[in-house]
Amino acid sequence: MRRVLSVLLTAAVAAASTPLSIAQPAGSPDAEATLQRIFAEALARGQAYDHLRELVGRHPGRLSGSKALEDAIDWAERTLRSVGADTVFRQDVQVPHWERGARETAVLLRAGGTESLAVVALGGSVPTEGAGVVAEVIEVKSLDELATLGRSRIAGKIVFFNRPMDPAIVRGTEAYRQAVDQRSRGPATAARYGAVAAVVRSMTHALDDQPHTGGTSYPAGAPRIPGAALSTVAAEKLSAALRTGPVQLALKINSRWLPDAPSHNVIAEIRGRELPDEIILVGGHLDSWDIAPGAHDNGSGVVQSIEVLRLYRALGIQPRRTLRCVLFTNEENGLRGSTAYVNRVKERKEKHLLAIETDNGGFQPRGFNLGSTQGDAHERAAARWRALFEPYGIHVFMKGTAGADIGPLLVQGITVAGLLPDSQRYFDYHHTTQDSLDKVNPRELHLGAAALTALVWLADTQGL
Amino acid sequence: MRRVLSVLLTAAVAAASTPLSIAQPAGSPDAEATLQRIFAEALARGQAYDHLRELVGRHPGRLSGSKALEDAIDWAERTLRSVGADTVFRQDVQVPHWERGARETAVLLRAGGTESLAVVALGGSVPTEGAGVVAEVIEVKSLDELATLGRSRIAGKIVFFNRPMDPAIVRGTEAYRQAVDQRSRGPATAARYGAVAAVVRSMTHALDDQPHTGGTSYPAGAPRIPGAALSTVAAEKLSAALRTGPVQLALKINSRWLPDAPSHNVIAEIRGRELPDEIILVGGHLDSWDIAPGAHDNGSGVVQSIEVLRLYRALGIQPRRTLRCVLFTNEENGLRGSTAYVNRVKERKEKHLLAIETDNGGFQPRGFNLGSTQGDAHERAAARWRALFEPYGIHVFMKGTAGADIGPLLVQGITVAGLLPDSQRYFDYHHTTQDSLDKVNPRELHLGAAALTALVWLADTQGL
Repeated sequence: MRRVLSVLLTAAVAAASTPLSIAQPAGSPDAEATLQRIFAEALARGQAYDHLRELVGRHPGRLSGSKALEDAIDWAERTLRSVGADTVFRQDVQVPHWERGARETAVLLRAGGTESLAVVALGGSVPTEGAGVVAEVIEVKSLDELATLGRSRIAGKIVFFNRPMDPAIVRGTEAYRQAVDQRSRGPATAARYGAVAAVVRSMTHALDDQPHTGGTSYPAGAPRIPGAALSTVAAEKLSAALRTGPVQLALKINSRWLPDAPSHNVIAEIRGRELPDEIILVGGHLDSWDIAPGAHDNGSGVVQSIEVLRLYRALGIQPRRTLRCVLFTNEENGLRGSTAYVNRVKERKEKHLLAIETDNGGFQPRGFNLGSTQGDAHERAAARWRALFEPYGIHVFMKGTAGADIGPLLVQGITVAGLLPDSQRYFDYHHTTQDSLDKVNPRELHLGAAALTALVWLADTQGL
Repeated sequence: MRRVLSVLLTAAVAAASTPLSIAQPAGSPDAEATLQRIFAEALARGQAYDHLRELVGRHPGRLSGSKALEDAIDWAERTLRSVGADTVFRQDVQVPHWERGARETAVLLRAGGTESLAVVALGGSVPTEGAGVVAEVIEVKSLDELATLGRSRIAGKIVFFNRPMDPAIVRGTEAYRQAVDQRSRGPATAARYGAVAAVVRSMTHALDDQPHTGGTSYPAGAPRIPGAALSTVAAEKLSAALRTGPVQLALKINSRWLPDAPSHNVIAEIRGRELPDEIILVGGHLDSWDIAPGAHDNGSGVVQSIEVLRLYRALGIQPRRTLRCVLFTNEENGLRGSTAYVNRVKERKEKHLLAIETDNGGFQPRGFNLGSTQGDAHERAAARWRALFEPYGIHVFMKGTAGADIGPLLVQGITVAGLLPDSQRYFDYHHTTQDSLDKVNPRELHLGAAALTALVWLADTQGL
């Protein structure tokens, strides 16, 4: 219904008088007027949400090695052509190929009976052997606590990491950063003390029955044990049971590692009219976890990056430098797309003025983080541009290193930036089946695309 | 499930170490530390969301004159006592009593056949007579267009007001303000030209099949015709049909006006230790539209206002002035609660330092509007307090007149303020059946309560 009628709405919106009447020629240096045009076009006729509906609706679960990801890559190429990129091409990348297999199970076993718990294997986990692992559970709140307990208390058990994301921390992303070691390194660390498996409380502030997956890794050559995430409700149940006496958990994980698979970054450009060999990059990642539709993570970043090119075309702005959209593969479990892109930049000695990533969800944009090896890029940006962004509710310019895909460009001396959307709701959905289109508000998504476009335009016309 | 387990989470959160270790005595003038305590308590142990679940779950559809509203008033009294108010009392208010009756219907009639349209009567609308009104539809985009068309083109028809909220305006509340004349004055204006009924496009940016109600009014003694809102999907259908030829609409509204009914403002106080006769007020409204659970509008404002008192108690802060929570009745269709409260203030010559309203939804707080007859309160507040609020994502201090309930106090010389939450999602749900608990994020709600509490504390300890 929405789909057919969006055509009608577009017509209705076009018919409704727009309050802007800006006589500036396209691309003029009048920054205030250009930002008005960018935001008005994005809000009134933005296509990012329609693109997200296509991407998420047709290609959910875009994990590296999957057909869904390669189909999404085809879709991205077509879509970038449709918005008017001068060139669209693929960069070949070999990516890790991990498969979940049949959905995992966890059953709590205690004197009073058994109870199934909501669980999901961590990405990259080894499978359980045979019919699964059954062992006593020991609860800890940190990786350090394992050293205190020692091998004698841990060997043969399932370690249960149960430190919640700190609710008192305002920024969800910061609370996540402070808790996620339990997931990313918990199983490998527990293995060193002889544990037979590890389960982790899901990385979310929400108290619900949705388990959140995410990557875990093992050092090369070190022992590997299976790892899974429990929903926060399941974690509370397990912890409550442990307070009453010994508890066993039966865990079954059916994953497997396959040989590396072919995949691709998708790269599109609008060629610069004055400095075509200088690049301004905007990007996100096409892959998602297998269980997730991947609307916020990171369908939003993909469609917002595409929308930057579309807004340039729709507004008739010719960039001075080459505007490049890079849609990375394999962010979630390998960063091979990022590595391949950085290597390409080094090999070709490509000059980037600025590289911008959006990988924190499609929520209301609040600002940017910026990083540079040559001083405080965020302070210069705030001093020059903050007043321009304030009418759009964008106030934050903080120091940062963009995200996982773009961050490595910082080491190459390139100024990097990340879009900072509101972070309160992100971890309600992150890496779950609930990261779906209905959790994205079209206006918030389009404001983010406009914010990215405005930053690109300011950097291109005014320099950094 | 959530309900039972929230007890477990509260325990888990209390057990998790909180990063704050502030040696300040409660109520000390160290503003930065006090704001940290307020926000940490609200985020880690806030009760506003649990209160909202009770209010919305037990007492949806709290329209003036309804049992639901009076039951909610009982609930509010109990809840304010439970959080530790010194005094809780009611102020009697006679409120208008309009009832919808059986749900209204609208059927599009044209050569090709008939089609039901999603419709809701506007609050205060007179009913259709007999079996309903059937008439030809004429579409307009503004009230002014009626004068251009004139009585000859309008008499005997149903006027269809179909100007969308302007999507290019960033703030949803501003786009609403610029479009809502069609709803609030459309039917009365159309009646002057002999129209037999009026239908209005719902006040929302969303394109969906949810009709949005809201108040409409008629000047005393002027002709009254029935008024209803169509969903935006229905409005698009009707407009598309009109482009192909004449269309009739069959509208049936079953409303009735009853005699005024008894209702109540609920007022609670924590008495000031130094200046008990000076009041700082924080409030919202208890009533809602009949079809709406009223989670954002304005359950959120109610529970956030209650939470201000709870946070003072939980943190052991004694206010210098008397902290008063006022939960108004009858905001949606009469403002009788506001009028009664303002009259009480005048009669008793009560001194208010500041009166704060929160009636824009329970979304991420972005700032405040402030108004004063004695100069630019918003500029003074920004200069003194903006840096204190920035760590919590709160940057906006703009000129304003609070909301409908508190605004009249400005005329009494009282400085007024309104909480400004994000406005992008509000009109997706406003005045519909979809304004439900699941549309509220607990952390966003609690950040808003903390922001209100911080503003109250700063005004009380530092003056205005």
